[in-house]
Amino acid sequence: MTEVHVSESDAVITRAREFMEANDLDAIVAMSPENVAYVAGVTPPSQRLVRARHAACVVPLAGESTFVAVKLEGPVVRARSRLDEIVLYEEFVEDPMNVVARVVADVGLDRSRIGIEETFLPVADHRKLQAALPRAELVAVDGPLATLRMVKTPREIATIRAIAGAAERIHAEVAARFGAGATEAEVGRFIAERYGEEGGDGLTMLVVGSGERSAFLNAPPTPRVLERGDLVRIDIIGTKDAYYSDVARTLAVGEPSDEQRRIFALLYDVHRAVIDAVRPGVLSSDIYAIYHERMVEAGLPPYHFVGHGLGVTLHEEPFIDAIHSIPLAEGMVLCIEPLTALDGRFGVQIEDEVLVTADGCELLTEAGAEFPRAAGGR
Amino acid sequence: MTEVHVSESDAVITRAREFMEANDLDAIVAMSPENVAYVAGVTPPSQRLVRARHAACVVPLAGESTFVAVKLEGPVVRARSRLDEIVLYEEFVEDPMNVVARVVADVGLDRSRIGIEETFLPVADHRKLQAALPRAELVAVDGPLATLRMVKTPREIATIRAIAGAAERIHAEVAARFGAGATEAEVGRFIAERYGEEGGDGLTMLVVGSGERSAFLNAPPTPRVLERGDLVRIDIIGTKDAYYSDVARTLAVGEPSDEQRRIFALLYDVHRAVIDAVRPGVLSSDIYAIYHERMVEAGLPPYHFVGHGLGVTLHEEPFIDAIHSIPLAEGMVLCIEPLTALDGRFGVQIEDEVLVTADGCELLTEAGAEFPRAAGGR
Repeated sequence: MTEVHVSESDAVITRAREFMEANDLDAIVAMSPENVAYVAGVTPPSQRLVRARHAACVVPLAGESTFVAVKLEGPVVRARSRLDEIVLYEEFVEDPMNVVARVVADVGLDRSRIGIEETFLPVADHRKLQAALPRAELVAVDGPLATLRMVKTPREIATIRAIAGAAERIHAEVAARFGAGATEAEVGRFIAERYGEEGGDGLTMLVVGSGERSAFLNAPPTPRVLERGDLVRIDIIGTKDAYYSDVARTLAVGEPSDEQRRIFALLYDVHRAVIDAVRPGVLSSDIYAIYHERMVEAGLPPYHFVGHGLGVTLHEEPFIDAIHSIPLAEGMVLCIEPLTALDGRFGVQIEDEVLVTADGCELLTEAGAEFPRAAGGR
Repeated sequence: MTEVHVSESDAVITRAREFMEANDLDAIVAMSPENVAYVAGVTPPSQRLVRARHAACVVPLAGESTFVAVKLEGPVVRARSRLDEIVLYEEFVEDPMNVVARVVADVGLDRSRIGIEETFLPVADHRKLQAALPRAELVAVDGPLATLRMVKTPREIATIRAIAGAAERIHAEVAARFGAGATEAEVGRFIAERYGEEGGDGLTMLVVGSGERSAFLNAPPTPRVLERGDLVRIDIIGTKDAYYSDVARTLAVGEPSDEQRRIFALLYDVHRAVIDAVRPGVLSSDIYAIYHERMVEAGLPPYHFVGHGLGVTLHEEPFIDAIHSIPLAEGMVLCIEPLTALDGRFGVQIEDEVLVTADGCELLTEAGAEFPRAAGGR
């Protein structure tokens, strides 16, 4: 474990420092949960829960990196952080922005150019940080950091592959075990338990939508009972070691209708056409254009996006839509997720994770051409 | 359900409007997940997950209230929001701050004083909102809103009572079912499954720390196997209908040692002394002083706080520490959670939820004086 941490630390810190050099920065102070996870390898468990408990990774261009965290998270951070130093602050007693400023000053960077995240840092904290570092130039690096994170390291890919595979296995188990008579909530609890067994940190957003709820985009499981004729849309979104899974399947309870079957088959063809187009150098907007064209040909309403990057956040660059034109590159991980939602009736979604390789892509999960059945009916 | 929604809507909106009048505000735009949940009764499921998917509750002093949410969350928001209108925006196509500004302008408030949350709103979004409403005065109302939320409505109390009771039941079930030979992860999965069965939205932070990990403050469950002689500290933190539970117990695996027994008994006495002091009019800092004095008398190191308010956030006003001097009032819900953590050895925590009543307090959960045992050992 230690060795992996060390080499990974080098990879991330090296990348971050190349980025700083290219952008004329003297340091980065990463404070969003995703960039803290990316840089340090761990987020304090309560960071997302108690907003005032800021965490920060202070990474200077040269010199030691420091993890700033609330004192009570010290043991958890100490056990897993890959940064050189840890500085803990007492909640309510010290303002975390002042602690960050002190760490920055201690490495002699209080008059330098410092990259921060303006789409994360609350305006009140930004004001405090600037006041505590009056001579520092705080520069927004949100976009560049997102760009930096697009291409994954081998260790990131291994983590994503593991939890994607787990999500796919759980989908198959749900199909084999549940059917008419089960509730969405039962399905949801089974998925949560299995996800934990597979080493997941937990589900962050689970969709189990049956019947007309299968057309609701983010539908948490409810006590609704699955009935023959329903479709059940299930999207397993959670994290393992801070990296996301996002794999969706749509199951038929009993025999799907001709219309459901027809839409599934059309959507599956679109799905495969999109995946077939994924390779290094292709623009994300060109992938979207293929999706759009195929959906129109199939007579299905195109959605405004068909996919997204995946990593320490659920939705990240490259977005596969008409707006973002990002050339794909080896090492990116994408979710491809065509969807057809007929309001008040049913929804069909097929979502796989793919890894961009040197000459195309590798499916980290692979939906079949067959309409999957919820076969465990009572 | 509809009737409850209507009356509750009146209670919250009435309170919010009294607050606006008192603070000379023309509107509030609540955007943090907690204040969106408080005002509207629902948070879009992906709001916490995808930061750019802002949600906003625009509540004018007079006129209709509006929920602004990302389009794909429309069905979930529509099914549960208690605001008058819903305005949905297309992700990536429209900037949510521009949509919020448009809603504000549509009700004629683009030159007025508008309460926003500066400890939530990212500096980049604050800049956009101000640019889109150049003549509006954006005023920070974070503190006053937190004050407003301290005293709970009857419906809030009912929700908190229900999930607190569920957490307490689950603790008892864990004690009866698990013991030496079980893993922290198995305990964690059981709690997650039962929490779902009890109607919880999910666990947001679960602590299952055994052996020396019982002294780690926020320790997620791991594969560690429980052994005789261990203490297991378990803290069930999650939500039901957006309201938190936060109930902690410490179990002994096998017979506790004399030292463990002694510390538990001392801490339990401190716990009861603190609870006995809770009644309307007492300052939170005076409650803390009692805790501090009792801990020193017991020869246990006092922690910098002993409790906190609970509601749509896990930790909220009134904080029970030396810094915050807030008079307790009927309808507040507090967590009282004395803790002794001996680094590298073990930790003991006892946490109950209490409701401040007209003449004292009611225990929503109640830890016993007996050292609870993990009795299900193999």
